[in-house]
Amino acid sequence: MNTFGRNFRITTFGESHGRALGAVIDGCPPGIPLDETDIQPLLDRRRPGTSPLASQRQEADRVEILSGVFEGKTTGTPIAMIVRNRDAQSEDYEELRGKFRPGHADFTFQEKYGIRDHRGGGRSSGRETIGRVAAGALAMKYLAMHGVTVSGRIVSVHGKTEPAAIEHEILAAMNAGDSVGGIAELVAKGCPAGLGDPVFGKLDAAIAGAMMGIGAVKGVEIGAGFAVAGRFGSHNNDPMTKDGFASNHAGGILGGISSGQDIVVRIAVKPTASIAKMQKTRDIHGNVVDISVGGRHDPCIVPRILPVAEAMLALVLADCMLEQAKYDRSG
Amino acid sequence: MNTFGRNFRITTFGESHGRALGAVIDGCPPGIPLDETDIQPLLDRRRPGTSPLASQRQEADRVEILSGVFEGKTTGTPIAMIVRNRDAQSEDYEELRGKFRPGHADFTFQEKYGIRDHRGGGRSSGRETIGRVAAGALAMKYLAMHGVTVSGRIVSVHGKTEPAAIEHEILAAMNAGDSVGGIAELVAKGCPAGLGDPVFGKLDAAIAGAMMGIGAVKGVEIGAGFAVAGRFGSHNNDPMTKDGFASNHAGGILGGISSGQDIVVRIAVKPTASIAKMQKTRDIHGNVVDISVGGRHDPCIVPRILPVAEAMLALVLADCMLEQAKYDRSG
Amino acid sequence: MNTFGRNFRITTFGESHGRALGAVIDGCPPGIPLDETDIQPLLDRRRPGTSPLASQRQEADRVEILSGVFEGKTTGTPIAMIVRNRDAQSEDYEELRGKFRPGHADFTFQEKYGIRDHRGGGRSSGRETIGRVAAGALAMKYLAMHGVTVSGRIVSVHGKTEPAAIEHEILAAMNAGDSVGGIAELVAKGCPAGLGDPVFGKLDAAIAGAMMGIGAVKGVEIGAGFAVAGRFGSHNNDPMTKDGFASNHAGGILGGISSGQDIVVRIAVKPTASIAKMQKTRDIHGNVVDISVGGRHDPCIVPRILPVAEAMLALVLADCMLEQAKYDRSG
Amino acid sequence: MNTFGRNFRITTFGESHGRALGAVIDGCPPGIPLDETDIQPLLDRRRPGTSPLASQRQEADRVEILSGVFEGKTTGTPIAMIVRNRDAQSEDYEELRGKFRPGHADFTFQEKYGIRDHRGGGRSSGRETIGRVAAGALAMKYLAMHGVTVSGRIVSVHGKTEPAAIEHEILAAMNAGDSVGGIAELVAKGCPAGLGDPVFGKLDAAIAGAMMGIGAVKGVEIGAGFAVAGRFGSHNNDPMTKDGFASNHAGGILGGISSGQDIVVRIAVKPTASIAKMQKTRDIHGNVVDISVGGRHDPCIVPRILPVAEAMLALVLADCMLEQAKYDRSG
Repeated sequence: MNTFGRNFRITTFGESHGRALGAVIDGCPPGIPLDETDIQPLLDRRRPGTSPLASQRQEADRVEILSGVFEGKTTGTPIAMIVRNRDAQSEDYEELRGKFRPGHADFTFQEKYGIRDHRGGGRSSGRETIGRVAAGALAMKYLAMHGVTVSGRIVSVHGKTEPAAIEHEILAAMNAGDSVGGIAELVAKGCPAGLGDPVFGKLDAAIAGAMMGIGAVKGVEIGAGFAVAGRFGSHNNDPMTKDGFASNHAGGILGGISSGQDIVVRIAVKPTASIAKMQKTRDIHGNVVDISVGGRHDPCIVPRILPVAEAMLALVLADCMLEQAKYDRSG
Repeated sequence: MNTFGRNFRITTFGESHGRALGAVIDGCPPGIPLDETDIQPLLDRRRPGTSPLASQRQEADRVEILSGVFEGKTTGTPIAMIVRNRDAQSEDYEELRGKFRPGHADFTFQEKYGIRDHRGGGRSSGRETIGRVAAGALAMKYLAMHGVTVSGRIVSVHGKTEPAAIEHEILAAMNAGDSVGGIAELVAKGCPAGLGDPVFGKLDAAIAGAMMGIGAVKGVEIGAGFAVAGRFGSHNNDPMTKDGFASNHAGGILGGISSGQDIVVRIAVKPTASIAKMQKTRDIHGNVVDISVGGRHDPCIVPRILPVAEAMLALVLADCMLEQAKYDRSG
Repeated sequence: MNTFGRNFRITTFGESHGRALGAVIDGCPPGIPLDETDIQPLLDRRRPGTSPLASQRQEADRVEILSGVFEGKTTGTPIAMIVRNRDAQSEDYEELRGKFRPGHADFTFQEKYGIRDHRGGGRSSGRETIGRVAAGALAMKYLAMHGVTVSGRIVSVHGKTEPAAIEHEILAAMNAGDSVGGIAELVAKGCPAGLGDPVFGKLDAAIAGAMMGIGAVKGVEIGAGFAVAGRFGSHNNDPMTKDGFASNHAGGILGGISSGQDIVVRIAVKPTASIAKMQKTRDIHGNVVDISVGGRHDPCIVPRILPVAEAMLALVLADCMLEQAKYDRSG
Repeated sequence: MNTFGRNFRITTFGESHGRALGAVIDGCPPGIPLDETDIQPLLDRRRPGTSPLASQRQEADRVEILSGVFEGKTTGTPIAMIVRNRDAQSEDYEELRGKFRPGHADFTFQEKYGIRDHRGGGRSSGRETIGRVAAGALAMKYLAMHGVTVSGRIVSVHGKTEPAAIEHEILAAMNAGDSVGGIAELVAKGCPAGLGDPVFGKLDAAIAGAMMGIGAVKGVEIGAGFAVAGRFGSHNNDPMTKDGFASNHAGGILGGISSGQDIVVRIAVKPTASIAKMQKTRDIHGNVVDISVGGRHDPCIVPRILPVAEAMLALVLADCMLEQAKYDRSG
């Protein structure tokens, strides 16, 4: 299942050390102005090698649009985009051919498929998100035409919330050959009421699935999230006034359907599994071995996960807006 | 979208005060022994009127299997099950025809559809989950045949973790015309490694979507969940030993694929939105009005959400097991 | 796969001699007036026992709507409909428990599932179409609101085209313990241009799949159909004039997309497989045996297939109209 | 909807005069040996410029595999393949920017999308099938591993069945600035019994949808096809003997499920819509104008449609074999 969405559908492909990664977007409405300069800035936010706190892999990640655009506009036909891999250093990973990195998908891929591309994590690499971000950039363009914007921010890293303290935590982890986790928050503004379906297609269900479908995310909450567990209903309910809702504990979603308030989502991001510190693991023959994961890794993935999470939220919302458009006309 | 699953697919229907609720299960393997006595006990756990701490609506919730079973076994054709509503007291809800209950889907349904069945919440009622539980009971039978079990427990209610304290919190809320939230945990034991897909079809993504698709759930976490945000990678990674994994911070899922360990999921459940306490809201004409929600409601929905969450987890796992079965033979 | 459609989605269930048959319709727009009297007349056209030329099984086929309707209108939630079986005479089929009827699905069901409900054909009975016709009746209501009508007619039976000759062929076959095939034509009038997708979702592809998905249909053609094989392009192309197209060899579909002309479909219907005449077949132990199929059967299924084919065409068109509605607003 | 299949799923993209065309294959089992030399021969059969009877556009149609293969084997992750366009002569089509070619999708694309890539038919060009053929080549590899083969042949062109007569008809049409249609037949050998689902997912329904989803196909029949309309049941039923079926009027499918016999499909292919002969049509302003379609076209598309139809049949069968694999293990 490398396809996401019902109406604004994307199919992604590509591995960390393969020839190229990319996405095909199907169901995008016709007539939207589009060229590579709409996509590249989002990919640039995501790409490695741009900060001393991130992976030093050097990839320009230049996107090429192969189809679906005519004289600068989308035509309603599928839009294929690709990014070629340039700086894969596959020899760094030779040791990993036979060892399962702790916290990674190495063991589970082997169990599932009986074969795996061990180079840079293969399909389970963070580079897999290139296709998501490229497609998300187009979703954001479509949303912006309808007054909807999506943004993300770092809430905390390793318990710290101030930028300086966060930077310090990341550097300290890096220097110790370790990594740290954190929390990010996404907000969508300008969403009309009525998006999402009441039962299995709840907007928050779609968002939760989209977020947990990003590698390293281990928790998702909407609005007040886990804090609701300690509350009274009289506190948690959002009263309505003449001007709308008096609070937004619901995070903009009631009964699975958008209320017109800001949509607020938080995700828990685990510390990067790839660390230099020595760990215990197994090799493919079942022997317990030591492992120090080489290669070029982010000591904290929270900053680089932001554009990916924004892209996924944008994709969910674009999909729901197209779904809802059916009923606005046809009832 | 009232259909859930790709392989073990259920379609549910029905409203709180309509004639009947139910589910059609499509894709269930043939040859599984099945009659109503396999389904009824799960529905009995879910139904109201059985505890002083729960809604007093009296519904026997007797299930009838309409199709898909021949001489006591499933045949591979769709299995339709229905439960008729008996004790709907629609007159209790007449006032709600024109008012939006805070914390409910009333407002968003009206915005989405321009029409809504206000009686007992209509399709957004908790009674909607009858179809899920009935279908989940069958999923559990299928899973049990493959050595997989699913169970749930209350972690906390309003911050309390001991049974007596929990009961006290619920009673106190009820007596105050209020409600309380809590946290529940689900565990699946016996899952083989290899379930779930690496990208959008991650097992944890499917679980997160399934859980957040239950009314009142506002947060989902897998394994260590939000706690990962404060950890070092060297602590959070689960080392492998001769006997398997030395810990289970991952909650049984690595890279979106089951590892063979227990699958551990926690959900945050908001306090019941329906409370007797006076609240501010709007009527359908836009006026601000007072509302005290009558009808028969649960002061805390955590206990009755357990069988629903177990059912959803079982449905996800059954679906993934069928998906994976394709590759076990065809590679 | 007992679900059909992407937007106007139906899921059907039920066997010939089970408790009930029916359908759940998901994705129907809200606000459409609906009660049982909208559905029953279509079911009455389909039901047996109404003509000396058809099966004598006596079934009132009374439909009950279980959900999705509030105060006489659809609400946007799933609409479940059931019809209970009354006159199943399962004892007539006892011999068939161990024999595969020629031309039937008996052998292939056994190969596929390893179990089968032999009574009246089980799920592969013509009674399976009750759910389709019930759902199609609602699709037709929706289409009529948009100016689209669907109708069907018998083109020929056993090579004859005149009503009297057709009746004679059917009677002769019946008296000989045999059956005859024929051709039916469906026409949809009033379809807007623009329905259908250019590649795999072509309108004619959807129609062909829908028609060939009806038991006994062995061929489908659109517009000129197989006759195009003997033509020049200069003859087959439909020229455009001031008033539209000068001919309709295309059957209302160009490049998979409706052109605004009448949509014209023809289907080839095989002679009923169940015949009294003695035939050779195998029993479940592999022995060659004689078989004369008892029970109550139609000597020619063409007349009763008409309402089913109309229903399927209506379902395809309703589905495509909802699909297209997305782009009318969102571009 | 540019995605086809449930289990062996392909998503195609690209236009006649865009940068590239291609396909992403998702759900292909891991471990299948694959490189470009497995795909290229099928593309070579499909490509233009190889016969005096076909379009003279010169395209090498070299395929590049971008992902999903590791050390010469599929890994279970998506396989992206692209073919770059080289010999597009877009200036030939400038006149068509403002005129609707008779028999083409020009008018319906304009009605549907309000925008269209007029160069070489854009997405509705025959070049769209490159992605299908590339994906079909992989499906055939998978099928061959399970003993299934797919082949096609020309039954007739413009009523002629002998090769010499067929060639003469095509040349005569070409010299007259005209085109001719014909009939092709596909046969799949070695299919196991049990493929396909009883109701909407019938194997013949899937095949009919796949075939009618190929541009220029206006009719599909299975086995005896339209001939059944003139038959008695006693003639049309295939008796069973000790060695299997005594005939194959059913074309290998009973009740929508494969019987183990050869699967036999015929398609009616219309004469190429693009002809030099002068025709009447409309321009985009509604004026009636004359048109003689330039560019490089096939006077008869039947020979080049064969590899496409074979590919689509292979895709359907691969998809059904994976679907069926679920039940072989999980029952």
